Parts: sequence; C-alpha cells; structure tokens
Amino acid sequence: MMIGAPPDGRGGPHVFMDDVEDPVLSADDRHHLSRVLRLRDGDALTVCDAAGRWRPASFGDLLVVTGDVVEVPPPAREVAVGFALIKSGRPELVVQKLTELGVDRILLLSAERSVVMWDEGKAAVQLHRLTRVVREAGMQSRRVRLPVLEPLRQASVVARDPTVAMAEPGGSGLDGDVGVLLIGPEGGWTEAELGDRRRVGLGSTVLRAETAAIAAGALMVALRDARVSAGS
Amino acid sequence: MMIGAPPDGRGGPHVFMDDVEDPVLSADDRHHLSRVLRLRDGDALTVCDAAGRWRPASFGDLLVVTGDVVEVPPPAREVAVGFALIKSGRPELVVQKLTELGVDRILLLSAERSVVMWDEGKAAVQLHRLTRVVREAGMQSRRVRLPVLEPLRQASVVARDPTVAMAEPGGSGLDGDVGVLLIGPEGGWTEAELGDRRRVGLGSTVLRAETAAIAAGALMVALRDARVSAGS
Repeated sequence: MMIGAPPDGRGGPHVFMDDVEDPVLSADDRHHLSRVLRLRDGDALTVCDAAGRWRPASFGDLLVVTGDVVEVPPPAREVAVGFALIKSGRPELVVQKLTELGVDRILLLSAERSVVMWDEGKAAVQLHRLTRVVREAGMQSRRVRLPVLEPLRQASVVARDPTVAMAEPGGSGLDGDVGVLLIGPEGGWTEAELGDRRRVGLGSTVLRAETAAIAAGALMVALRDARVSAGS
Repeated sequence: MMIGAPPDGRGGPHVFMDDVEDPVLSADDRHHLSRVLRLRDGDALTVCDAAGRWRPASFGDLLVVTGDVVEVPPPAREVAVGFALIKSGRPELVVQKLTELGVDRILLLSAERSVVMWDEGKAAVQLHRLTRVVREAGMQSRRVRLPVLEPLRQASVVARDPTVAMAEPGGSGLDGDVGVLLIGPEGGWTEAELGDRRRVGLGSTVLRAETAAIAAGALMVALRDARVSAGS
C-alpha cells in the first residue's frame, strides 16, 4: 500500500466495492460497465472501497488487479452543505453536484418555511434514491470517499452545532471557520432559525436554493483544499 | 438617480424592459407576472433596463414607479466562462446557473473533440433558446446587467485572447488574472488547443463538464467580488 492521490480519470471508470484486496464486481456494476460504458475484457478501471483506498484493475469475467492499493489521506477538515427541501427543487441535482465537487457531508433539511413535507415513507424512498445518486456521482467524479448523506432533519436541530452557519443575503463571506453551511427554503430562514448564528452571504445576486447549495459546495471545497483563501 | 446595489429580492419580482424612465411591460411579461407569479394590482416589483439601472414600481394596468432610479456600478473587471457543447450536456442548466451566479459573459464553444456539431440553423435556434434562459435567470436572480451570451465559436479561436485560461486537471488554482476560463468536452482539450496557454485546475475530483462550468462561475465571481482571494 502507498499513500497517493485519487484516480485522475485516465485509468478508466471507477467502481466502489467492499474490498479492494479481493475486488469483486456486483452484477449491477458489471452490467453498467459492460452495457452502458461498453468496457471490454482487458480494459482499465479503478476499484475503490469508498473509504479512501483504491487500485487499478482490468475488466473481465474476473477482475485482475494491475497495481498496488493507494490510500488517500482524508481532508484536513470536513465541509458540509445542508439544504432545505423546496417545492420546485431538484434535490438529486444538488446531491449529484455536491458529491462531484467533493463535499464531505450532505444534509437534507426541513425548515419552518419549508413547503415540502415528506412523511416517513416518502423520506425513506427519497433517501434511498439520493443515496444511489451519491454513489453514481462518486463513481463519475472518482471520489475515494463518499459524502455522508444525512436523513431529513429540522434545520433548527442541525444548527445547534457551533460550526454551522446560515446562508443569508447580506451575510459575511465564507472562510475556514464555516464547517457546515445551511441553505434555506424559498421564503428564507425565520428569525428563530437564524438566531445569533453566523450568517454567510453568497454574493450580490439572488440565488435559487439549488444554485446557492452548489455554489456553497464549490467555494467551501476550494477553501478546504486551499485553492482559494478567505476574502479580505 | 442614485448609485446603489441591485435589488435584494424583497421588492418583488424583477422585470427587464427598454426604459426605466417610462416603464412599460411587454404582453409576455405581464402574463407571466399575473398568471404565473400571481401579482395583483398594487403589488411591488422592480423594473430594470438590463444595463445597470433599476427602480421599484407597483403592478397594475399601468405600472406606477414608486422610487428613484438606482444605477449599479459595473464590476471592476469582467469574468467569462466558456464551455464546449457535449452530447449528454445540459447547456440550459449551465447558462441558467452562470447567469444566476453573476458571470459577465458566457461563451458557447466547439472543440476538436466535441461530439456535438450544430449546423447554422440549429445554432441559431439554440442561441435563441439560451438567450431566453439568460433573461429568465436574470430576472430570477435580480441581475441589473445580463451576461453577454456569445454565439458558438471554436475554442481555439476564442483562446487567442491572452486572458483566456483552459480548465485542465492538475492545472494551477484560479486567481484574478484569469478573465476567461474555457471548459473542454468530455474527451478533454487536445494538446493543440491547450498550447502554451495557462491551465487551471478545479479540484481533485473529476468534474462533469457542466459541473466544472458552474464551479468555475461560482469561484470566478467570488474572486471578482473579493469574497475570496487566490490560494497561497
């Protein structure tokens, strides 16, 4: 085993499985690779345990490993984006983009002004569907750790965590102190939800909730990875 | 007239028209406001000339202006994002998000590895459709200037501009020197297209082209507006 970077995408498609020491494809993944991505025997792919370890392999009736296991160190700190479900929202778009961008944790929220209410059954179905979106986007973007997708909770409960900030027009800029940013519903956060929590602005335009969540993900991951610094 | 900020969205919907001195609604916009957004007589809205000037007004058979014209200074420098059209791409999603985020110019590109080819007729239809997307997203996000949407051109032609950088895995981080960032097709840029142009990386994950374009927009606008600084 060696310490290294995630796959750069040139080593073929990327597939998650339980054990990279003894990689075995699920029937679903085998079907996807051969029928959708049209992989043939001997074509390269990367296999990954979704817990930071991956290695190169070649496709066939049995997978053949073609290189050592690479362990990717976890990020120095984690970033999380939560978003309130909204009526005209596309949670699968937001979850897909946050996964691709490299966010560590995704929180589904209900808010006081949420118009969407999921009952328990609907919440379970949606969580299952969004978990598939995370896995597919994680393969697509060659992630070595999948973001944790947290079941629907009330924003006011999540916001008890002191690293939580609330996205709010006119708030301060993002910096490394914000570990979790919550995006409100169309009608905005209530004063009770905002409380004395830090408020973060995402620019001078009025963003759709889905756009705010994606922009927050892009900025927070860039800050986490020191590709940008906090504004002056 | 006074100098000020764009509307914050609390003053009602936002509509573009030729002249804010003598605001008149088009039949289409009137229909949208009354039937889709359900505005009633006396409800607030903001009217804007899409050239930096806006003012508050109230809805009715005739629009009544309720405040002075506000002129919003242009950004200190402009940022542009170009993206190559791709087979499974959603150009309307990218154009919508770049408009919401505040990008100043959007470039539609063909690249050497582009699989999508639009003939002249198709290009005209698509440009018309995407121009509507810009206008709708500009209203939604309360922009006071609409981004310029440039007709389809070859990336290699656009890249003659010295402020152009090419998005490429492993490239350097974004900073204020990058005025225009071009996002390649699924197969990436060719060496000829890259040439000795600056290469900019957008993180350690492998981003879909549409995600790369949206992330680039979020980061470039945040850098332009000094909400973040270049990484160290």
